[in-house]
Amino acid sequence: MQKLTEEYLEDAIEDSKPYASSGQVNMDLPNFDETMKDLLGVTIITNEGESFSAGDHNHYIPMQSTSKIIGLMLALQDFGKDRVFQTVGMEPMGDFFNSISQLESYDTSKPFNPMINAGAIAIAALIKGKSVENRFNRYFDFLKKITNNNELQMSEEVYQAERANSARNRSLAYFMQSTGTLVTSVDDALELYFRMNSVMMCSEDFARVGAFLARGGMTSESEERLIPPHHLRTVKAIMMTSGMYNSSGHYAVEAGFPCKSGVSGSIIGAIPGRMGVGVIGPAISPKGNSTAGGALIKKLSQDLELNMFGIENT
Amino acid sequence: MQKLTEEYLEDAIEDSKPYASSGQVNMDLPNFDETMKDLLGVTIITNEGESFSAGDHNHYIPMQSTSKIIGLMLALQDFGKDRVFQTVGMEPMGDFFNSISQLESYDTSKPFNPMINAGAIAIAALIKGKSVENRFNRYFDFLKKITNNNELQMSEEVYQAERANSARNRSLAYFMQSTGTLVTSVDDALELYFRMNSVMMCSEDFARVGAFLARGGMTSESEERLIPPHHLRTVKAIMMTSGMYNSSGHYAVEAGFPCKSGVSGSIIGAIPGRMGVGVIGPAISPKGNSTAGGALIKKLSQDLELNMFGIENT
Amino acid sequence: MQKLTEEYLEDAIEDSKPYASSGQVNMDLPNFDETMKDLLGVTIITNEGESFSAGDHNHYIPMQSTSKIIGLMLALQDFGKDRVFQTVGMEPMGDFFNSISQLESYDTSKPFNPMINAGAIAIAALIKGKSVENRFNRYFDFLKKITNNNELQMSEEVYQAERANSARNRSLAYFMQSTGTLVTSVDDALELYFRMNSVMMCSEDFARVGAFLARGGMTSESEERLIPPHHLRTVKAIMMTSGMYNSSGHYAVEAGFPCKSGVSGSIIGAIPGRMGVGVIGPAISPKGNSTAGGALIKKLSQDLELNMFGIENT
Amino acid sequence: MQKLTEEYLEDAIEDSKPYASSGQVNMDLPNFDETMKDLLGVTIITNEGESFSAGDHNHYIPMQSTSKIIGLMLALQDFGKDRVFQTVGMEPMGDFFNSISQLESYDTSKPFNPMINAGAIAIAALIKGKSVENRFNRYFDFLKKITNNNELQMSEEVYQAERANSARNRSLAYFMQSTGTLVTSVDDALELYFRMNSVMMCSEDFARVGAFLARGGMTSESEERLIPPHHLRTVKAIMMTSGMYNSSGHYAVEAGFPCKSGVSGSIIGAIPGRMGVGVIGPAISPKGNSTAGGALIKKLSQDLELNMFGIENT
Repeated sequence: MQKLTEEYLEDAIEDSKPYASSGQVNMDLPNFDETMKDLLGVTIITNEGESFSAGDHNHYIPMQSTSKIIGLMLALQDFGKDRVFQTVGMEPMGDFFNSISQLESYDTSKPFNPMINAGAIAIAALIKGKSVENRFNRYFDFLKKITNNNELQMSEEVYQAERANSARNRSLAYFMQSTGTLVTSVDDALELYFRMNSVMMCSEDFARVGAFLARGGMTSESEERLIPPHHLRTVKAIMMTSGMYNSSGHYAVEAGFPCKSGVSGSIIGAIPGRMGVGVIGPAISPKGNSTAGGALIKKLSQDLELNMFGIENT
Repeated sequence: MQKLTEEYLEDAIEDSKPYASSGQVNMDLPNFDETMKDLLGVTIITNEGESFSAGDHNHYIPMQSTSKIIGLMLALQDFGKDRVFQTVGMEPMGDFFNSISQLESYDTSKPFNPMINAGAIAIAALIKGKSVENRFNRYFDFLKKITNNNELQMSEEVYQAERANSARNRSLAYFMQSTGTLVTSVDDALELYFRMNSVMMCSEDFARVGAFLARGGMTSESEERLIPPHHLRTVKAIMMTSGMYNSSGHYAVEAGFPCKSGVSGSIIGAIPGRMGVGVIGPAISPKGNSTAGGALIKKLSQDLELNMFGIENT
Repeated sequence: MQKLTEEYLEDAIEDSKPYASSGQVNMDLPNFDETMKDLLGVTIITNEGESFSAGDHNHYIPMQSTSKIIGLMLALQDFGKDRVFQTVGMEPMGDFFNSISQLESYDTSKPFNPMINAGAIAIAALIKGKSVENRFNRYFDFLKKITNNNELQMSEEVYQAERANSARNRSLAYFMQSTGTLVTSVDDALELYFRMNSVMMCSEDFARVGAFLARGGMTSESEERLIPPHHLRTVKAIMMTSGMYNSSGHYAVEAGFPCKSGVSGSIIGAIPGRMGVGVIGPAISPKGNSTAGGALIKKLSQDLELNMFGIENT
Repeated sequence: MQKLTEEYLEDAIEDSKPYASSGQVNMDLPNFDETMKDLLGVTIITNEGESFSAGDHNHYIPMQSTSKIIGLMLALQDFGKDRVFQTVGMEPMGDFFNSISQLESYDTSKPFNPMINAGAIAIAALIKGKSVENRFNRYFDFLKKITNNNELQMSEEVYQAERANSARNRSLAYFMQSTGTLVTSVDDALELYFRMNSVMMCSEDFARVGAFLARGGMTSESEERLIPPHHLRTVKAIMMTSGMYNSSGHYAVEAGFPCKSGVSGSIIGAIPGRMGVGVIGPAISPKGNSTAGGALIKKLSQDLELNMFGIENT
């Protein structure tokens, strides 16, 4: 087995960079342009608290869909598993993340799972608080504790872009209002959802979320549990079956540990009991996953023997 | 953590039996009737070779869909991962196991994955051999080695019932013939598929398949690898995302290890590096999973700390 | 062939009334309640200008979906057939009127046809005018001319109820905004659409719309054509294939002339070159058509030999 | 209005021929090749018994889907409307003719309508007779009477090609067997269906079928009714809403009379009370309709004022 060092990570970055050429930078995001195509950064934080970074690990990108796992954690803490999964399902689906057909065809009162847009909007609506502001602050405080980073910022620019380009999400939210799935107004649910997506993080921040999951709800800095570990088991299981859009099955086979990606090119990985991984690589595939980042995740799985389904490296 | 003993397993069986009342015995299977509703048996075989059984562990039932993982192993060995997944996908889908819509709507040349009927039929067509007889013998020999049981029998009665009640599977197979997915004739693919489903096994046999997966391709009796472990990683990953019909997401959350069920009420579980589990419990849910068997699987996961996504039992 | 007289119509009403018992009054509409269940009224206006009424023909109900054909006429006049059918299709579909799946699965830039909600909203967005107020006034003036009724009123109460209960239509509209189908803002399109649906009419008014279609764009009172007859051919053809929700095929067979229904229990029928029919009967089927009104339409077709597909009454 | 003469028809053929370039000859049919691309022939038979032909009217092509209306007539005669429409629906659908999804999604016991393959196979299974041979003979005799043509031949070559290329239809048939829709064996239903599709006809034969529909069940040669006219009303209504595959709505608007097409490039048109039209033009669109033939149908509608929805030619 490969030993985990920063030199190794630099080599892995170099090996994975060529895969960026098969992706496209998501130009809907403010300040995202062609110059970002070759960015690739990684941080790994072990359960023992060691941290290893390489490449463009200091580059900040918006969370986008990686926020879905934070929202799910908070909703689980606020309401417990039973109540949360009365609102959304927990089944994977092999369809695109912004599909509306499934809302109609499957069970009109439930999105398939919390990792698709409809499910995450329904989950955002659950998060407790007196106002959108208040609910976002709860989310943001929780995220700052998880990442042990008080300097995190929400990008006003990203947030405004999310709002300006929101027709499809608004369609999903109104559909869920019509079926009684949404427990708040459409505007309240979406306002919170857009803000959650707009927090800027670097690969270290993403890795800290992964490490938090890997350590069952403890940060590297504290032995205090922020959330019961059984809720994190739920989050990790759903990441495994549904975290990588309609390539989730592919990543279950090729990486073999829970991951969640965002269309900014972010990936959070969690290897239970071992380590958290954070990747940024803005060139994404048509399915929404970082192409170079995905290649890197698979290489790390192979070299560091992270595949939960395999007992050895063959 | 609960210590694994036969006494514990007997208790677990007693606790899980009441869940049988919410299921129905699949009367399409020969000799399946109401009297079987309360049958529940379990065997666990550890990677160290210890075996523990309880309940109706000597009762033989047909493999049904649990045969899908054996077929997948053989196809992977015959052709390798790349070729196999040119024929079928590896994405989960939140739809019923005999869905034909997905064949039309998604990618007409590929069933979603090898765990649904269409995918398993396409996989059966891949298995090498000069004739259906010859191909079935390869399958059967492989299964006998995995289970270390030369006494295994294919039930002629079950096989005839499969054939007699095959319209839906035939529809799936002809659809795949029309799209060029099927590499043999419809009859050849189905004949093999029906035979694969008709092998009779008891909970110990099912547990041995799970243990084979858990040990990365070795049986308890031999250190010889029958199949490279990386193929078994693939099989286990697909079991995790798609092994329990359209409750796969639910079992990923609630059991947290790879399982595959059949409508006879069989379940095979594999905890990588630790143990294999075999369950029989003929009362099944509308989605096709043993109700008492599923409850037992979840209880074992909780008590024996088998959930791969959790680092502790809380 | 039965001679058309008011006595005959009274008899036909009596024969059809029992069918109301299989329907339900749409309680989402203001002032609609159980007491309306047995209302049934009809007016027929021949191309020669004779008018025959029977039953509750003086009862006013909102247009609801019958407004879709007025909106389509206006859009055809404003933009011509080519431009209108760049925005919506002209194919029938056997699905529910408020389906959103079809928007996703078929051709994401086009609703199937102008008779389903999504299509009618897209059509409303096309109608020319500087403001919603101005566009509605154009619609309303056009409708007053067609019905030769300057006393028509839009019900503020119905309009407010439409707005309050608009989540599904808003979902459809935002979906079409996301695909670029909608040429105005969602709010502008919906505001106009809700007002169009809220004009109150009695069976005579509905019959006048039918007669206008039957006479190829002339009212009974004037030889001036308000709209070229070829546009009305288009409207009538689409009513035939798609005017009665997902019972359109049934009505093509059983009535055999173009009809359009609304969930208020209104039906407009047009027998080209012969007559227009207006029916009100608030008890509607699950598919959205007046049950007693539909029975009456079929009886009229039979007795008065209105079926365009048959050359005699056998 | 244009007077109907053979000279006019020759001119109409010339005007329509260029549309063949946008189509493709269906090479799945025996002896169909590029040289047939520019064939275009037409026959019109009026209700008064006059016959007018132009272009390649002597060219014989297989009936293909135009056989669906003959099968429907026979089933209506054998069982009556109620029984027939217990087996198939009468609703149009905007989907492809060989769609299987709709069988699953809509009402698993009923194909949408008798004009799609699944519906026509279910209808074929209804036709009375002791054997496939006997049932085909009933069909063939009926067709010979309708066309007044005892020389009609079934092409053994076309029939064998249908059988050899039958996977999709077999998939549809087995699906319907699995839902209990099919009242015979799959083989019996398909054998009859393939033969029905394989009868060779020229434009005069096709026109005679149209004239038979237009005259309400009488042939030009006889005043004897072969089938009650109300059954033909049903057939014509279903042709209007569903006869031209998923361009049926387009033809309702642009031609405005009942038509049925086949992928051999055949079209049967029926203008109730006036005339029948038969067209052959083997270059077909992706939706399955003759491109030049379709252009000709629309031109005839315009010039000869055949649109049932319009009272004048403007």
